[in-house]
Amino acid sequence: MGEPGSSELRNENFRKRCRRIIFQSDRRSEKLFDVLLIVMICLSVVAVLLDSVDFIASRYGLLLLWAEWVFTILFTIEYIFRIYVSNRKLRYMRSFFGVIDLLAILPTYVSLFVPGAQYLMSLRAIRVLRVFRVLKMSHYVGEANLLMRAIRASLRKIIVFVFSVVTLVLILGSIMYLVEGPENGYTSIPKAVYWAIVTLTTVGYGDISPQTPIGQVIASIVMITGYGIIAVPTGIVTAEIALATRQARVKRPCRRCQETEHEKTANYCRTCGERLVSAE
Amino acid sequence: MGEPGSSELRNENFRKRCRRIIFQSDRRSEKLFDVLLIVMICLSVVAVLLDSVDFIASRYGLLLLWAEWVFTILFTIEYIFRIYVSNRKLRYMRSFFGVIDLLAILPTYVSLFVPGAQYLMSLRAIRVLRVFRVLKMSHYVGEANLLMRAIRASLRKIIVFVFSVVTLVLILGSIMYLVEGPENGYTSIPKAVYWAIVTLTTVGYGDISPQTPIGQVIASIVMITGYGIIAVPTGIVTAEIALATRQARVKRPCRRCQETEHEKTANYCRTCGERLVSAE
Amino acid sequence: MGEPGSSELRNENFRKRCRRIIFQSDRRSEKLFDVLLIVMICLSVVAVLLDSVDFIASRYGLLLLWAEWVFTILFTIEYIFRIYVSNRKLRYMRSFFGVIDLLAILPTYVSLFVPGAQYLMSLRAIRVLRVFRVLKMSHYVGEANLLMRAIRASLRKIIVFVFSVVTLVLILGSIMYLVEGPENGYTSIPKAVYWAIVTLTTVGYGDISPQTPIGQVIASIVMITGYGIIAVPTGIVTAEIALATRQARVKRPCRRCQETEHEKTANYCRTCGERLVSAE
Amino acid sequence: MGEPGSSELRNENFRKRCRRIIFQSDRRSEKLFDVLLIVMICLSVVAVLLDSVDFIASRYGLLLLWAEWVFTILFTIEYIFRIYVSNRKLRYMRSFFGVIDLLAILPTYVSLFVPGAQYLMSLRAIRVLRVFRVLKMSHYVGEANLLMRAIRASLRKIIVFVFSVVTLVLILGSIMYLVEGPENGYTSIPKAVYWAIVTLTTVGYGDISPQTPIGQVIASIVMITGYGIIAVPTGIVTAEIALATRQARVKRPCRRCQETEHEKTANYCRTCGERLVSAE
Repeated sequence: MGEPGSSELRNENFRKRCRRIIFQSDRRSEKLFDVLLIVMICLSVVAVLLDSVDFIASRYGLLLLWAEWVFTILFTIEYIFRIYVSNRKLRYMRSFFGVIDLLAILPTYVSLFVPGAQYLMSLRAIRVLRVFRVLKMSHYVGEANLLMRAIRASLRKIIVFVFSVVTLVLILGSIMYLVEGPENGYTSIPKAVYWAIVTLTTVGYGDISPQTPIGQVIASIVMITGYGIIAVPTGIVTAEIALATRQARVKRPCRRCQETEHEKTANYCRTCGERLVSAE
Repeated sequence: MGEPGSSELRNENFRKRCRRIIFQSDRRSEKLFDVLLIVMICLSVVAVLLDSVDFIASRYGLLLLWAEWVFTILFTIEYIFRIYVSNRKLRYMRSFFGVIDLLAILPTYVSLFVPGAQYLMSLRAIRVLRVFRVLKMSHYVGEANLLMRAIRASLRKIIVFVFSVVTLVLILGSIMYLVEGPENGYTSIPKAVYWAIVTLTTVGYGDISPQTPIGQVIASIVMITGYGIIAVPTGIVTAEIALATRQARVKRPCRRCQETEHEKTANYCRTCGERLVSAE
Repeated sequence: MGEPGSSELRNENFRKRCRRIIFQSDRRSEKLFDVLLIVMICLSVVAVLLDSVDFIASRYGLLLLWAEWVFTILFTIEYIFRIYVSNRKLRYMRSFFGVIDLLAILPTYVSLFVPGAQYLMSLRAIRVLRVFRVLKMSHYVGEANLLMRAIRASLRKIIVFVFSVVTLVLILGSIMYLVEGPENGYTSIPKAVYWAIVTLTTVGYGDISPQTPIGQVIASIVMITGYGIIAVPTGIVTAEIALATRQARVKRPCRRCQETEHEKTANYCRTCGERLVSAE
Repeated sequence: MGEPGSSELRNENFRKRCRRIIFQSDRRSEKLFDVLLIVMICLSVVAVLLDSVDFIASRYGLLLLWAEWVFTILFTIEYIFRIYVSNRKLRYMRSFFGVIDLLAILPTYVSLFVPGAQYLMSLRAIRVLRVFRVLKMSHYVGEANLLMRAIRASLRKIIVFVFSVVTLVLILGSIMYLVEGPENGYTSIPKAVYWAIVTLTTVGYGDISPQTPIGQVIASIVMITGYGIIAVPTGIVTAEIALATRQARVKRPCRRCQETEHEKTANYCRTCGERLVSAE
């Protein structure tokens, strides 16, 4: 206490060490913390799932309530601690995982006032995505990034596609409402649109299905169309992933011609026969 | 009135300004008009949807009827105005959006004579596709064109495919009609063909499903076949989209000649053979 | 009759002309014959479909019976005529369309002895595939061949895949039979295997569905697996179609380097800048 | 018996010959053994399937029980024989097919103590995969390996994908449980999660389906999302298969060096740079 600066320094060192433990996972102790956290998250999600099953809730309801509160308080402490040790507090709070960390504890507190809110705690499941940090994260993050890039690259095409599909189901729904009518389960256009979506996506619950011959002919056309339409998003995403996968391959340019892709073990250019400089 | 030519000129200028506002969307006022129009289209489609829901129609029926007529009259004015200001009136009327603009107002008038026709107003939804003009249209149009080109390029393959599928379901339907018979819900060949389509497209409502062991064996074969068959349209479209995506040219101007668009992987100008500076 | 050779020659010429009309479709009269034939095939298939619908059969049964016999006799005459005019009679009879032509007329005759056989006449639908000969056949045949080649090239991979899937559904079916048991609709292993196929192919009728929690967990795993598995045949066929589509592109080899694929309008090699010899 | 060494040698020769017959399938006798084995496996699997069908079991129950024991004893003898003749006994027992061979006979013995266990004998079906050894195995193994390699290469991406899907269905399930509630069949969160999986994978049994308007809106969003999501695993696997197919080397011997396998599109030997004679 004699030297406040030293106390501050010690405090700073403590925060630094905590920061390492909480936000990284290279060393043993850091990994241990992450594994423990993930186990706890999984347990708390399982508790929420079980709590909603009637015959379990009636027997172990009190136990599960206790578990819920214990987990919530632990996660609250962890959340406050994360804010405390991080240097850019606001940046963490606004980050994707910062928001999720908050949303993971809020429902329990809200459920004190609004019954049922605690079931939204399954949002905690998103926190499990931290798991990638533990299992040689970098590789998986690389793959996840490749996927994300491919999906982002195809976003515009997909928006165009979704807009067209929505327009299509609106029209199909209206036609089916006129053809089949309320007496066959198509009680309103929104319901008929719902049917069109269920059919076009090949989900096909069967809670509403065409009964009149004309309705079945139209439905058949919708189904075969949907069969072709499903090819479009697949084609879009596949094309982008294929491009991204190929671009991730080794580049070994030939000095004479401009061929840039060669097998790792090749000695000569496959296009012009020039000797390749050895890889790496 | 003293100078009719000047009045005509002023008229012409007015038409020109209107044309810009209606048909383009670069400046602020032009964009505002488009956004307003789209909001109105969405509102009118929602009105049609709600009008078909029984308990809403019974309460707000009069309000919705009013809304329907107000929207229809507004759209009619807009349609007449569009014809008035456009230079090539017939060309607009025959264009895709010209026909849709007409179809979007007709149902309300027809519904005066044929009850139920107003539900076809959901055709208005197609007009919403104009939305692409507002949100940086050119980019989306480019993507939409790429999709359209890919689909058109694969059209012939898809026609061959659809023909084969139709033949297949006719034969499968007949066989199932003989095997299962009317007592299991396969009351006629057309109905059995309908079942075959529902199954082959993996929609599977379950309103008709095979009951006899032999029928279930045949159905199993159909399903596994359908599993493989769904791969064909996907393969066709994907191959074309992949090709179109790869060939999509980017802006890479040649320093010597005026050619500005080259493939991403090209090293030399496709028009004059000048070496291109490496992309990025 | 004085000169039998001349009569034979005239006969030969007649057969030659008939052969042209029946087997080709370049000239007008030849095309007319094909179009007429296809219309008749379609009509006869529609007749079979309608005949199986109860309330139509009870009213127009006699008419449809007449139509059936008229079409069958016409097709029989056509079949005999085809054999008569063709030079290699046996080769035609053994060809794909030769067999189909025979199968298209047999059911009516068989139905004299075995009731119900006439419904197999929908086999006639296959004859409609001749339609490709009429509408600029060669193009469509080219596309159909590309598809066939791609499917044949991926046949072995697909056989491996189907074998694995069959093994998988046998095991899944047995497990579900043990877990769910006869009281939940899984009355036997074959039925449980049928359920596994319905689920894995994402058809999902819902006539049998897991009721116990454990069964639903297993079903969930099966569905997510099926989700991934459906990617495999798609991937196989897509890869082959992509390869076939790309290989069908214009080859314009560069004389200096070995780059063989260039855009149609390019003047210079995209890889080494050498001037390309003009296409075609 | 006079010369034990000779007896041992004879014994060794006998084992060697047996080993050839059992583990290989090039010569006639070796192939015969494999075919016989596969027929027996198929028969025993069929017996298990039939035994579970009530009305067959009640008639032929005794016969099927006999068949079961005969097959099991034969397979047991075969299993012991395989261990006896193989040089590296432990290695065989630990190999994939070694374990399957054991699992194929265990259920019958276990069923003496645990009724119902005999239905797991359908595990025998896996043994049928040996069939690839008989029909020009090497080709099919090549294709199977290509598929396996493609799947393994995309494994990480698929793990990332499955993790995201599981998180998604947990959240969707919770929301639907809150929206629809137990009175519409969503009796617990696990059940709602089960529904989310059934819907997202487009299986759509229809045993549980949303009844409230809000539930149907959410379900519609889920379905269209699932429509897009199904594109991802397909895209991943397709990209890898396409890559593997393109890189698949064919026999194109170099005239100078000993390298015999080159990519289809290569012009020069990858090892010594010699010009390759054009493919075909």
